[in-house]
Amino acid sequence: MGTIGELGEFGLIARLVRRLPPSARVPLGPGDDAALVAAPDGRVVATTDLLVEGRHFRLDWSGPYDIGRKAAAQNLADVVAMGARPTALLVGFAAPPGTEVGWAERVYDGLGDECAEAGAAVAGGDVVGAPQVTLAITALGDLAGAPPLTRSGARPGDLVAVRGRLGHSAAGLGLLLDGWQDTADPAAGEVAADPAGREGAAGPAGREGARELVAAHRRPRPPYAAGAEARALGATALLDVSDGLLQDLGHIAAASGVLIDVDSAAVPVPDVLGPAGLRYALTGGEDHAFAGTFPAATVLPPSWSVIGTVAEGIGVTVDGASHGAGGWDHFGE
Amino acid sequence: MGTIGELGEFGLIARLVRRLPPSARVPLGPGDDAALVAAPDGRVVATTDLLVEGRHFRLDWSGPYDIGRKAAAQNLADVVAMGARPTALLVGFAAPPGTEVGWAERVYDGLGDECAEAGAAVAGGDVVGAPQVTLAITALGDLAGAPPLTRSGARPGDLVAVRGRLGHSAAGLGLLLDGWQDTADPAAGEVAADPAGREGAAGPAGREGARELVAAHRRPRPPYAAGAEARALGATALLDVSDGLLQDLGHIAAASGVLIDVDSAAVPVPDVLGPAGLRYALTGGEDHAFAGTFPAATVLPPSWSVIGTVAEGIGVTVDGASHGAGGWDHFGE
Repeated sequence: MGTIGELGEFGLIARLVRRLPPSARVPLGPGDDAALVAAPDGRVVATTDLLVEGRHFRLDWSGPYDIGRKAAAQNLADVVAMGARPTALLVGFAAPPGTEVGWAERVYDGLGDECAEAGAAVAGGDVVGAPQVTLAITALGDLAGAPPLTRSGARPGDLVAVRGRLGHSAAGLGLLLDGWQDTADPAAGEVAADPAGREGAAGPAGREGARELVAAHRRPRPPYAAGAEARALGATALLDVSDGLLQDLGHIAAASGVLIDVDSAAVPVPDVLGPAGLRYALTGGEDHAFAGTFPAATVLPPSWSVIGTVAEGIGVTVDGASHGAGGWDHFGE
Repeated sequence: MGTIGELGEFGLIARLVRRLPPSARVPLGPGDDAALVAAPDGRVVATTDLLVEGRHFRLDWSGPYDIGRKAAAQNLADVVAMGARPTALLVGFAAPPGTEVGWAERVYDGLGDECAEAGAAVAGGDVVGAPQVTLAITALGDLAGAPPLTRSGARPGDLVAVRGRLGHSAAGLGLLLDGWQDTADPAAGEVAADPAGREGAAGPAGREGARELVAAHRRPRPPYAAGAEARALGATALLDVSDGLLQDLGHIAAASGVLIDVDSAAVPVPDVLGPAGLRYALTGGEDHAFAGTFPAATVLPPSWSVIGTVAEGIGVTVDGASHGAGGWDHFGE
């Protein structure tokens, strides 16, 4: 099939665009100086992220399809976290000229499929050569006339609730860092799941659980319906958990000028997370669950878990006590 | 002042955001999951580009302020090339953790100043660590209810016209590739301007001319008013010259299904471009001039140069003959 360097910029764009379905929300798609995207209420929600090989993903841990899905998901989740409906993605794709065309196509398959799940479409982009694979994703969205759900609206007395998985991606990353490899040999699989004999996230859950966690790391599954749902339920603040629950709730606490207390017993910690599950759930990022605050009287549907309360003060506590839990710093080593 | 790695992600964002003025077109700026940008006519023009150190700029050839201005300019020009008014920029910034904070701040000063020239503002972004400095820029814009000026509207009989500089950036790049260095010593300057004794772009124009060309390479100056002007003049197609005039006119020819003939004697080739000036003007990219087609009876203001005509056929000719001139392929070496 050849490399993207052999195919050249315009040939590659033509090949990639062919994989992307058109959308009514994108009246003018790829092929001109810029795209045109619907913004029905006269405003557009816009967010951008840069994902760099070796820092945000590893080519030996994730295939191109999952890299595309994950890159799209983390930006679509940011749009949804404003209470908006995603409309379009713009994709900057950089890769070494020796990259196989088929590999690049699979990245775009992943981008397109994740967009489709969120109701959006790829509207345009750019392809360039670079030493590392890099994805620069911009997601756009529509608030349908509603005010944005920012981080600054939490009020003392509000409930704190989450929808979506917590800790799965971090536990899966832990397994990969420990050298976990999938294998058809059950015995080898068990050993590989915890090669150092340490407290392993997949310990009790075994090979199937490990697979589930690693899959969650490779491809987050943000519950995209949560944005519109939170808005309809009267949420006062909302964000997606990208760096870790406690750290991200800290953003709501700081922006709203409130104290958020998390009830650790109420945090959903499924068995698959293993003995370190609560730590993963409180500090693990990249699952892109949604965390929000709601007026105290709100009756939340079962898809949301109430995990804490908002009070006067500032900061985040767990069971009333301060904690030293951090999160992910994009310049950290 | 320290490095961006020492400052950390959130500290750096706070420092960078402080350099950016607010804008009425950005009702919600940096600091939440996503920004909110005005899209008054219910649509948004959107384009994205990825600029990678060593491929799109060199740190020994361009300072951070010019890198910021150039990155912004090439995206703002894409918005203007649709006949739109730029409203906002989203900026993904990647750099090694050892990068000086002051260096990053100057990139954002450049981004902000270029935005201001085009009437836009930086609405949000992302900062990450990476081995190379990388800028991922998304520009948004407003068509004010007008149809977009695409590449597909050129019709036989139309005039072809350009507004803005041609060839300057390529000539400046040629000087830098030849080892040109600015110097206060006139004699050394003349020698350095053409170290190999080759046909030098700066030959006749001397050191001042060389400076002008190198400055043009470091910081393009797209005439942003050209988009609205072209629309008001009834342009049938428009684009910005990013890869080279002939190559870019080829995109209009292909999208419109027409033949474009360029009259080489009508192409503006100022003396500063030197003896190879016409070649630079026809094939050099990155000045982000605007090239468009207009109905034959259009009376163009003096800021536009009529350089050719549209006929039945396909492709681009120069003085009626085919040419082998290429342009810039983003995967080429």
